[in-house]
Amino acid sequence: MCGIVAYVGNRMAGDFLLNGLRRLEYRGYDSAGIAIHGPGDVHVTRSVGRIQALVEQLGSNPTDGSVGIGHTRWATHGPATEENAHPHLGGDGEVILVHNGVIENFQTLKSDLIKRGYSFRSATDSEVIAHLIAEGLKVASATTADAQERCIQATRWALAQLRGTYGLAITFRDHPNFLLATRFGSPLVIGVGQNEYFVASDASPLAGCTDQIVYMADHQLAVLTPDDFSVSHRDQGQVNVQVQLLETATEDVSLQGYQHYMLKEIFEQPESLRNAMRGRFDDENATSVFGGLNLTPQQMRGVRRIILTGCGTSWHSALVGEYLIEQYARLPVSVEYASELRYRNPPIENDTLVFGLTQSGETADTLAALLETKRKGHRTLAICNVIGSSIAQAADGGIYLHAGPEIGVASTKAYTSQCCVLAMLALHLGRLHNLSFEAGQQLISALKQAPGAVQEALHCNEQVRQVAAKYKDASNILYLGRQLNFPTALEGALKLKEISYIHAEGYPAAEMKHGPIALVDAQTPSVFIVPQGSTYEKVIANMEEVKARGGPIIAVASKDDPHVEAIADDVIHLPDVDPLIQPMVNVIPLQLFSYHIALMRGCDVDKPRNLAKSVTVE
Amino acid sequence: MCGIVAYVGNRMAGDFLLNGLRRLEYRGYDSAGIAIHGPGDVHVTRSVGRIQALVEQLGSNPTDGSVGIGHTRWATHGPATEENAHPHLGGDGEVILVHNGVIENFQTLKSDLIKRGYSFRSATDSEVIAHLIAEGLKVASATTADAQERCIQATRWALAQLRGTYGLAITFRDHPNFLLATRFGSPLVIGVGQNEYFVASDASPLAGCTDQIVYMADHQLAVLTPDDFSVSHRDQGQVNVQVQLLETATEDVSLQGYQHYMLKEIFEQPESLRNAMRGRFDDENATSVFGGLNLTPQQMRGVRRIILTGCGTSWHSALVGEYLIEQYARLPVSVEYASELRYRNPPIENDTLVFGLTQSGETADTLAALLETKRKGHRTLAICNVIGSSIAQAADGGIYLHAGPEIGVASTKAYTSQCCVLAMLALHLGRLHNLSFEAGQQLISALKQAPGAVQEALHCNEQVRQVAAKYKDASNILYLGRQLNFPTALEGALKLKEISYIHAEGYPAAEMKHGPIALVDAQTPSVFIVPQGSTYEKVIANMEEVKARGGPIIAVASKDDPHVEAIADDVIHLPDVDPLIQPMVNVIPLQLFSYHIALMRGCDVDKPRNLAKSVTVE
Repeated sequence: MCGIVAYVGNRMAGDFLLNGLRRLEYRGYDSAGIAIHGPGDVHVTRSVGRIQALVEQLGSNPTDGSVGIGHTRWATHGPATEENAHPHLGGDGEVILVHNGVIENFQTLKSDLIKRGYSFRSATDSEVIAHLIAEGLKVASATTADAQERCIQATRWALAQLRGTYGLAITFRDHPNFLLATRFGSPLVIGVGQNEYFVASDASPLAGCTDQIVYMADHQLAVLTPDDFSVSHRDQGQVNVQVQLLETATEDVSLQGYQHYMLKEIFEQPESLRNAMRGRFDDENATSVFGGLNLTPQQMRGVRRIILTGCGTSWHSALVGEYLIEQYARLPVSVEYASELRYRNPPIENDTLVFGLTQSGETADTLAALLETKRKGHRTLAICNVIGSSIAQAADGGIYLHAGPEIGVASTKAYTSQCCVLAMLALHLGRLHNLSFEAGQQLISALKQAPGAVQEALHCNEQVRQVAAKYKDASNILYLGRQLNFPTALEGALKLKEISYIHAEGYPAAEMKHGPIALVDAQTPSVFIVPQGSTYEKVIANMEEVKARGGPIIAVASKDDPHVEAIADDVIHLPDVDPLIQPMVNVIPLQLFSYHIALMRGCDVDKPRNLAKSVTVE
Repeated sequence: MCGIVAYVGNRMAGDFLLNGLRRLEYRGYDSAGIAIHGPGDVHVTRSVGRIQALVEQLGSNPTDGSVGIGHTRWATHGPATEENAHPHLGGDGEVILVHNGVIENFQTLKSDLIKRGYSFRSATDSEVIAHLIAEGLKVASATTADAQERCIQATRWALAQLRGTYGLAITFRDHPNFLLATRFGSPLVIGVGQNEYFVASDASPLAGCTDQIVYMADHQLAVLTPDDFSVSHRDQGQVNVQVQLLETATEDVSLQGYQHYMLKEIFEQPESLRNAMRGRFDDENATSVFGGLNLTPQQMRGVRRIILTGCGTSWHSALVGEYLIEQYARLPVSVEYASELRYRNPPIENDTLVFGLTQSGETADTLAALLETKRKGHRTLAICNVIGSSIAQAADGGIYLHAGPEIGVASTKAYTSQCCVLAMLALHLGRLHNLSFEAGQQLISALKQAPGAVQEALHCNEQVRQVAAKYKDASNILYLGRQLNFPTALEGALKLKEISYIHAEGYPAAEMKHGPIALVDAQTPSVFIVPQGSTYEKVIANMEEVKARGGPIIAVASKDDPHVEAIADDVIHLPDVDPLIQPMVNVIPLQLFSYHIALMRGCDVDKPRNLAKSVTVE
């Protein structure tokens, strides 16, 4: 989603801004822009499309100057055009800013500003903030003579009128010697260098520039000059912020010979699963251990219900968690869309534990849902991948995935790592309740087989590519599975939807008869996930129903399956594994299937249209 | 889904069989057939398509005879061909039967029968039963001389080998004087006449023939002759069955001037909602009352969690129930797909109440899920429309919808009646817990406005038709809503999918950014349900995101909405009503939208391809 970078110091600002924006590319965007204080004036350059297009546009424009801001935009209000790209100008250009977030009352504010004579150049909500600060400068000019103080007052005055979320980097045409940065509900970090300061919407652009980092909090406003920075809070005045060490410097995320990040991350899964499990088994007690739960065994045992909440792919892994925890720990689990939970006010008992699941740790809805339940006094935990992320800081405790940076917008290794961590959590909770020592040992043994089984599953790549070639022109595909394989069906469908723009939909296999089967014809293939297990014969019967209506069938089945070949048009065979680790193994061919189809259709696998990696607006 | 009729008496069997099959048409089918004992031989006639095609095929075939069986088939194993249509013959034709249900182990049985020399004429699982009974006749012939007894023994011998579900009507080529009927997991009723007996898979074909009815139970087998009938149970021997009065004779379900049953049923909703509420308000205590719950207030108050389970449209109304009951009664509610619940063995506490929701009361998965939880000792209740249906008999109590017969395969009035009954249940439970007398009065007042508001909403019909004309060629449509309007989005998408075969999908509006938005382009319209209320501005922001990517927008909004017109391409305005009744009101334009689009695309609105009204197989 939208990305912010800003620089103030003694070097050429343009270098950091462009490199930083490239580092933020993985978040998803559709236009970009920068503004740099050059000799005599501020130079604003914006373009639709990739950073490369911006670089080409800059060719003829001067980028000299050591103070500047930059932005990648993921359209929320108004299409992806040059006019709507950031930076936006306020007044006659005296205010220049970049904005992440959504201003909900922008229509009202805009009408009001138009009445006051401001003319709008874009369809965005962000431009309203720029004009509002320009208006604030007029108000503030009467009360203070100090330029920096006047700009801060104008900004505070404008912020007070906004309803919504923002991360902002602001510079002023007539004051090239400082920058402002402020946030509410949208992350911002400050990088502290030697006579230079950096601002970014997450830490990834800072790697290699500095390892000293400040995570800004809501309602904080930072003033940055080449020599110093200070932070004030709306209500508390000046605050002393804590400078932290950037622990995981963003690794050098090169493609290492793979054609795309997504493919690389799919093939990294045996390793990322090993990392998710490393050091987390207590073989002596036949259970799993987590360092960061911050709960005693007595507190954990007192839990009577669990709520898992997340969005998109994380919502699917939450469904996997529901099946596993209910089965092995015998605790009722509710899975909630985070965007619904945050506004829903459902009844939650005192002995309920709430987990927020998000790869980035910045997903706005998941963070808000967790904060809302925490505010009500419930114990909240996070399952996320990015160390130091907003949710990791906000939750009472949590579990890191240790999957390494995930760059591809369509999540793959973070998903299987979530499934893995949830399986370990089911074991942990189960061993507090009704699982025997032997049962615990068996589950540990099954978990340890996951990386190897995933490795074996990856051997299907070439076969999946051939199957993909056969179905690449489909307009609609159904994904069907039962029990633990129902979330896998949802996840397979989402992958295809995200990167190939084919309308795929997942269903519990038996639910098909209650509507979706109307879609079945010779042009609409169905993917059945049908490993050996308790509902195997039932799914076979569902396959017969689809076949009877002429629908092509792709089956994902166990290695030695005796029946599926006779019904399905194409069969992908997978290792026959314990149900506990099936979600990690069975999703592999579906990830590969979506990858190959997207590639064959000429789609941009790592940066699919309209999508953002980290959804930091609601 | 598949339908069975059978007749033994002194009249022409063909008349009842064909009329009965027509009465069963609403269940959904793709081929049909009958077998009648004529002079000297049994005449079997089968055809693909409608009953009318069967009648035309019969033109040249004799239908004289007073004993016969008939069937409408909804394909489960093997496509809809004449060979696969029922009746099926066993051996050299000495056994003739019709079958509802699914035989799971048919492949194994078939291989075995082929080895013994039987040759198969169809791809169905049903034919296996016919051959198996033929084989049984050989076995039985050695032990008994009585023809009728031998046929019963042969049938019992065959049934013992089946794994799966069946409703069967069986006749024997060489014994035209009796019929057998037996069931396991698939409903069968016997109609008792004067020197004539009828068999059918539900009571609807019996209206006008007899009002004396016997609901058969699992493992019962009936022998019917023109003069008498007797019923035996597999384990209990001869049983005395109870003849009941058919209380709701299937009404004369004429179209009353409407072009389709679906349209008629959409317009019946003000009346069906009145019927759902009639006599169920206790104004003195500001609560609702239900006659059939069979729970004391103390028992009801002791409930600490509620599980709602169903399939398809009923699963959507269950989601509405979740929102309403959690909001007004502050009790946690879990919604489960019935097909998943029946095999999932989730942890359910003693103080949990389980509701099964099904219009027909015969939905195999819902019935099985309810029976499974009942078997475990939980209290189970049914919410269904058909009086005397299997679930009504099986549950510990329940609530009838009183919506009248629903003939259109795509459910409309049963859905809004379910929403209405669940809203009344939320009121009932709320008044046991935390709702004040005044709050109860307000909710009653809101509920009483539902029929009028729905009536007003129906005025949008002509406008919806015009909007439908604009979007009728779309291949994909997204439906988006939040909170209570999320299930409405799912239901709107399902309606369109069912009858127009357009791939429509519903999502919580904010979830769109986590994947589905990749589908958005100028060819993919989005339907937003965006009434005034708590998340109104958030949904508007989601609409902006779609608009920014060039997606056409259809909005369902409140009457006096100030903002939506500026963003949406088309706006359908609805009365502004209390959230409690929004699900009943807001779904109206979506029902009409799917109806008009299907009509414009030349689809068979009342009998969509592949679908069945009452899904009596898993």
